[in-house]
Amino acid sequence: MAIEHLAVERLSEHYKSVRSLSEKLASRLQNEDSIIQAMPDVSPPKWHLAHTTWFFERFILKEKNPSYVPYNPQFDYLFNSYYETIGSYHPRHSRGVLSRPSMEEVYDYRKHVNEGILSLLKDYGDHIPEDVEELVEIGLQHEQQHQELLLTDIKYNFSCNPLLPEYVEATLSLQTDLRSLSTYINIDGGLVEIGFTGTGFSFDNERPRHKVWLDSYKLASHPVTNGEYISFIESGGYEQPEHWLSDGWAAVKKEKWKHPLYWRKTEDGWYTFTLTGEKRLNLDEPVCHVSFYEADAFARWSGKRLPTEAEWEHAMASIPIEGNFVESEAYHPVIRESHTRSPIKKAYGDVWEWTSSPYTSYPQSKPLEGALGEYNAKFMCNQMVLRGGSCVTSQSHIRPTYRNFFQADKRWQFSGIRLAEDLS
Amino acid sequence: MAIEHLAVERLSEHYKSVRSLSEKLASRLQNEDSIIQAMPDVSPPKWHLAHTTWFFERFILKEKNPSYVPYNPQFDYLFNSYYETIGSYHPRHSRGVLSRPSMEEVYDYRKHVNEGILSLLKDYGDHIPEDVEELVEIGLQHEQQHQELLLTDIKYNFSCNPLLPEYVEATLSLQTDLRSLSTYINIDGGLVEIGFTGTGFSFDNERPRHKVWLDSYKLASHPVTNGEYISFIESGGYEQPEHWLSDGWAAVKKEKWKHPLYWRKTEDGWYTFTLTGEKRLNLDEPVCHVSFYEADAFARWSGKRLPTEAEWEHAMASIPIEGNFVESEAYHPVIRESHTRSPIKKAYGDVWEWTSSPYTSYPQSKPLEGALGEYNAKFMCNQMVLRGGSCVTSQSHIRPTYRNFFQADKRWQFSGIRLAEDLS
Amino acid sequence: MAIEHLAVERLSEHYKSVRSLSEKLASRLQNEDSIIQAMPDVSPPKWHLAHTTWFFERFILKEKNPSYVPYNPQFDYLFNSYYETIGSYHPRHSRGVLSRPSMEEVYDYRKHVNEGILSLLKDYGDHIPEDVEELVEIGLQHEQQHQELLLTDIKYNFSCNPLLPEYVEATLSLQTDLRSLSTYINIDGGLVEIGFTGTGFSFDNERPRHKVWLDSYKLASHPVTNGEYISFIESGGYEQPEHWLSDGWAAVKKEKWKHPLYWRKTEDGWYTFTLTGEKRLNLDEPVCHVSFYEADAFARWSGKRLPTEAEWEHAMASIPIEGNFVESEAYHPVIRESHTRSPIKKAYGDVWEWTSSPYTSYPQSKPLEGALGEYNAKFMCNQMVLRGGSCVTSQSHIRPTYRNFFQADKRWQFSGIRLAEDLS
Amino acid sequence: MAIEHLAVERLSEHYKSVRSLSEKLASRLQNEDSIIQAMPDVSPPKWHLAHTTWFFERFILKEKNPSYVPYNPQFDYLFNSYYETIGSYHPRHSRGVLSRPSMEEVYDYRKHVNEGILSLLKDYGDHIPEDVEELVEIGLQHEQQHQELLLTDIKYNFSCNPLLPEYVEATLSLQTDLRSLSTYINIDGGLVEIGFTGTGFSFDNERPRHKVWLDSYKLASHPVTNGEYISFIESGGYEQPEHWLSDGWAAVKKEKWKHPLYWRKTEDGWYTFTLTGEKRLNLDEPVCHVSFYEADAFARWSGKRLPTEAEWEHAMASIPIEGNFVESEAYHPVIRESHTRSPIKKAYGDVWEWTSSPYTSYPQSKPLEGALGEYNAKFMCNQMVLRGGSCVTSQSHIRPTYRNFFQADKRWQFSGIRLAEDLS
Ligand SMILES: [Fe+3]
Ligand SMILES: [Fe+3]
Ligand SMILES: [Fe+3]
Ligand SMILES: [Fe+3]
Repeated sequence: MAIEHLAVERLSEHYKSVRSLSEKLASRLQNEDSIIQAMPDVSPPKWHLAHTTWFFERFILKEKNPSYVPYNPQFDYLFNSYYETIGSYHPRHSRGVLSRPSMEEVYDYRKHVNEGILSLLKDYGDHIPEDVEELVEIGLQHEQQHQELLLTDIKYNFSCNPLLPEYVEATLSLQTDLRSLSTYINIDGGLVEIGFTGTGFSFDNERPRHKVWLDSYKLASHPVTNGEYISFIESGGYEQPEHWLSDGWAAVKKEKWKHPLYWRKTEDGWYTFTLTGEKRLNLDEPVCHVSFYEADAFARWSGKRLPTEAEWEHAMASIPIEGNFVESEAYHPVIRESHTRSPIKKAYGDVWEWTSSPYTSYPQSKPLEGALGEYNAKFMCNQMVLRGGSCVTSQSHIRPTYRNFFQADKRWQFSGIRLAEDLS
Repeated sequence: MAIEHLAVERLSEHYKSVRSLSEKLASRLQNEDSIIQAMPDVSPPKWHLAHTTWFFERFILKEKNPSYVPYNPQFDYLFNSYYETIGSYHPRHSRGVLSRPSMEEVYDYRKHVNEGILSLLKDYGDHIPEDVEELVEIGLQHEQQHQELLLTDIKYNFSCNPLLPEYVEATLSLQTDLRSLSTYINIDGGLVEIGFTGTGFSFDNERPRHKVWLDSYKLASHPVTNGEYISFIESGGYEQPEHWLSDGWAAVKKEKWKHPLYWRKTEDGWYTFTLTGEKRLNLDEPVCHVSFYEADAFARWSGKRLPTEAEWEHAMASIPIEGNFVESEAYHPVIRESHTRSPIKKAYGDVWEWTSSPYTSYPQSKPLEGALGEYNAKFMCNQMVLRGGSCVTSQSHIRPTYRNFFQADKRWQFSGIRLAEDLS
Repeated sequence: MAIEHLAVERLSEHYKSVRSLSEKLASRLQNEDSIIQAMPDVSPPKWHLAHTTWFFERFILKEKNPSYVPYNPQFDYLFNSYYETIGSYHPRHSRGVLSRPSMEEVYDYRKHVNEGILSLLKDYGDHIPEDVEELVEIGLQHEQQHQELLLTDIKYNFSCNPLLPEYVEATLSLQTDLRSLSTYINIDGGLVEIGFTGTGFSFDNERPRHKVWLDSYKLASHPVTNGEYISFIESGGYEQPEHWLSDGWAAVKKEKWKHPLYWRKTEDGWYTFTLTGEKRLNLDEPVCHVSFYEADAFARWSGKRLPTEAEWEHAMASIPIEGNFVESEAYHPVIRESHTRSPIKKAYGDVWEWTSSPYTSYPQSKPLEGALGEYNAKFMCNQMVLRGGSCVTSQSHIRPTYRNFFQADKRWQFSGIRLAEDLS
Repeated sequence: MAIEHLAVERLSEHYKSVRSLSEKLASRLQNEDSIIQAMPDVSPPKWHLAHTTWFFERFILKEKNPSYVPYNPQFDYLFNSYYETIGSYHPRHSRGVLSRPSMEEVYDYRKHVNEGILSLLKDYGDHIPEDVEELVEIGLQHEQQHQELLLTDIKYNFSCNPLLPEYVEATLSLQTDLRSLSTYINIDGGLVEIGFTGTGFSFDNERPRHKVWLDSYKLASHPVTNGEYISFIESGGYEQPEHWLSDGWAAVKKEKWKHPLYWRKTEDGWYTFTLTGEKRLNLDEPVCHVSFYEADAFARWSGKRLPTEAEWEHAMASIPIEGNFVESEAYHPVIRESHTRSPIKKAYGDVWEWTSSPYTSYPQSKPLEGALGEYNAKFMCNQMVLRGGSCVTSQSHIRPTYRNFFQADKRWQFSGIRLAEDLS
């Protein structure tokens, strides 16, 4: 009992800690910034703040507290993202027209729902039902995902403004370490297992743990750097169709890609836009903001390939989860390495690593029941898996089995490249 | 001399009065509202405030004050609307991404430019050059046009938010008069003259005054009302191609038009969205927010036609400019009539009246020289002329010769219908 | 009576003569060519042949011969172009999918309808009703319009094939005359009349004859030549927004226009694609295949302007209708002039001349009743008037009052430029 | 040696036999049909005939016969499909504008290349190099793929013509067998192998044979029938988002899908368009012309799932390749079953079966070198694998390891559904 009580308290503390990070991240914005949606893929900051709150209201307060009165019944329409089984929702590409509710009102909404959740938890005392605990946990994981998107989307929005605003002032440079040269590590294959098992939170798309046959392979010790990527650019990579998938080449021509998103070439060399404003490109940092198509073309140009997600997970499973996460407040990939003893460096944090694996369900997997079954499963088509978290991911959010996924042409995520190779 | 000095003082007062109205109109908004652009045709309120200021800075301070230091050199790019000869500019459809400069900074920009202009005028003392006076006058007319757009665009933006925000609370109802029935007034034609002549300000597109032959004709005493327009709807007007121009019918099908913009049919009857929120449709008010296509189709269905702009001007030239303008703060067409003795009512204010005339240059017209030649002339294709001003136009802005113009499918302006007929 | 009988005979002969030209023009094609639709604006040759036939079947045989059995009831759907009041029709942009009916069947259809019409005319004997005569006349005028389109569309279709097929072999060169230099002719204005009156056929859009005030003006003696147009290109005309209407400049940038349609620049000079294959551009020929936007920009760059349609008609009304028409079988504008004594040359034939007049209805005009009222009237918006016919127009089809009309961005018509100027 | 000589003869016979089928299939068309491209995904019949010929000319005659003179040098541009490393090519979506070369010329081209290939083979005599043999084999496999597309595309083209032409007259009905009810067969999993090994032709995408872990599973004995699919429709399958992938649901709404492609509901029941014209839907035939999204939604609605391609291949590997192929000349899925003793029926022929596997490269796979490396590998993104061949596939073209692939929204292929299930 005392232990259960402790569990509720720990959950409440966890709740307050995760929720308050959203507000901290948003506090650096002006109200005018809160409503920008510079392309359909991004959401306005205010919308993230309200939608994550609605998630707790709709899936917990409304379901578990019979006397709960919704803050505003129209919010079910405004802040439902894509749960078809819950009802119709405001079109995703039009979130930028919602100047109301104002930021002030959204903060009030957050406060209202926070009070509701904390008081609900308190009421359970030492008998918190497992499904409620699970729902709160999902809600917090969900909020962490949106915290990452909040930063990712602000970066994109700001990059479209010729004034190139800074989200935050740069901290003292963390770029003091020398980058080691990338080497290739031999990994033994065989009939291995991947996927989540054990206690603690995981999403339905990480389960069940299952067998996979892997031929032995080699994995790069480091993610690809800006300097390495520039060699690809300068050797004509963006003009030579032979490196590219057919859809990738079509994207290169249609979008006129010549370099990663946010880069700009001047007479004076390469610059990149960051959350601390535009800055000179550091050649030793991991390359970031490339699409799957670019990652794949770079790999082919290099005579290498991308790892499958099974290869990635099998190699990384035992490496401690350390690195450059959102907690570092760098908001940008760095050179500095964590002091893990593994020969594989930067497995976690810095940049999401594209794998060669399309996002599909695991054998015998079971999506969640009800509307939350829509959380992950319905996106299992036309997307590629990324692994490892980035500099805008919460450290506590990442697991070796964590699967992120985006369409192959997306570049506004903090996405990078780690190469693999067959063992000949 | 004393008179000239007086002229400068009057101009300064006029300047202050017009400029401050923009700020008054914007003061009812929250900062989040200031940056919304719900479709490419509208501009965010903040952009209007900055662009009109830039107009004074760019065309007067930079040209006439050699020591003037621009507030921010990037504003030439951000707040140029479409003057190609001045340089490149931020794409019109992307104005909604400019969360910075903030509203606070824009107000500071306005203050800075206001001080510049007023001090320039003061420096001229009693020798203000004619071209400077003309430029200030153009700048103020320009600001008045954007004040109208500010309200028009806010209305559109707010209408896209399911919360249907009110721009301002409704004042006491002005709807006390009974609407008279529309009659048709015979107007004598012949070889008449239209176009501006004399003193006072006019745009280049209103000049020169020139001869036009008009057959005698009839003009409706009143604009078409909501009630009359509902008869068109209920008789199947939107389903019968025979009333419509080919392009109009294509628009009806593509846009799924079934009624004017902002209308909504409920079991309880018709409602319309206004700057004071959604309200029950008043059948006796002038119909508003129709496209040229709808105006034209309604006229054909009625067995009538729209007047040409020459017919309109010839009939209205001697009617005093009174009516429901922005100064009334109704921000909506009303029933009440001004007490003019003319048998033609509501010639000015309430709603812009579509004419059957494409917007073209007058015989022997000369556009302004330099970049301001782009103000009007380059739009003389694929647009239709509207006349008479509306409930969101400044009274001092309107003249009998004033030509407004929009594409035939635009509906977000306060645009309505007055019918005409051949004399058989 | 004898005279009436003669009228029927003449009408029958006229019918046979016009109808057989369509077949002659199509006889130079292979069956594979008959079904191409290289852009939505053009129609496949076979469709023109069938649609013009359907016009006679639907508006005459079905209406006037109660015992007429339609050749194929589905043809009302397949070959109705745009008559909404007649029923639904196959989408214009999908005419290119109709491989059936085959060419063989379409020729059979033509034969079937020809027999029907000629036998109907014969049955009337000397009492042919006026409306039938009028309908046959409209049908033939309609067929002549489509004969022009047939050639215009074949040219466009062939130009999209890298093999650049010849529609017909070039005849002996007609280009022996020297081109005279263009001069400007003074034309007296005043209260003039334009529009059709008298006997003979005219379209509803040419009526009624009506008064127009014209200031006196100057009109160029010749259409603009390729050589003159090249000066515009070489002086940077396509890179300088100041010459262009706003919509025109948008078209230049979007469509990447750098020269008229069908031109190609090689190291060896300019070439143009014609119905006799690609050939070296003759600098003294009238420029052809320019949009209204290009015509208007060229005029502004020249310090001149385009004439209004009233100016055009007033100046050309008394000039004999001679020139380079489809009967010449050149299918291309030529240098050679007709030997008219008028100082204004090439008023008719060679190239359609863009005017500055939007296409609108004449004062007090009455469209035809019934479905044929859709023939012209419903297109009176967003189009510009062209005058004078071209090298692919039938000579018998043209009148001084004839109004052709196209959207301002269309270039696949044989459209050129004649300049005008104010009399200062 | 005698054996080698025999090999050349056999190859020549095989060449003649495959090539002549294309001409036989095209012989049922009129020349007007040969040039239709009713949507960007399909190619005109004539283009297929020319492109397959170009493939032999370009990859064999030009490479292996130094004295070969190309039939027409422009054909490299016109009939290259997508080989970027060979040079630029005519845009895919514009193949329908190529009325020339005429069908007559294309047949002449085929004859010319056939003579070239056969004479080349003859010249080798008993020393045919392995790579030439391989290239001829690829060319023939390629031609078989295009024969299937030829039929598939004709069907689509004809379906867009309201006259609904028949490609061929229906033969005597083959629909005499009673359809057995579908049952589920248990298949043992384990560490199995899939992929091609051994002698005979295979594409690079089928290699190498490699290990895959499979949990044991159940596979349906029969493909899903029209009758079963109608239950899905009638239970509201197309209106209920819960069955659909997110991208699939978006496609349903955008394309307004309500049933498989080619179906039409009348008061009298369901009809479907076939290569023998429109006919009443037979409820016992395998459902055909569904997208992956529909196959996946149907499976979810059924409480089942689609098999992976490894599950499919593992289960089918030992079943003889018999069934309803193009040789049957039914050109439509049938009820009749082949007399295989396997409990799994209709493994091959009738309909391609969508699997749940995205199309990716096999572990350690090596694409072909040179331009032919583009044949398969560059499409390995955003496509799903289909297995088993269809009623328009050549029987000799199919192998258990054969991988077909299309985007998840494509429906014009002869694609159907076989369900699978986890073993609980
Ligand atoms: Fe979410
Ligand atoms: Fe402006
Ligand atoms: Fe027609
Ligand atoms: Fe091919």
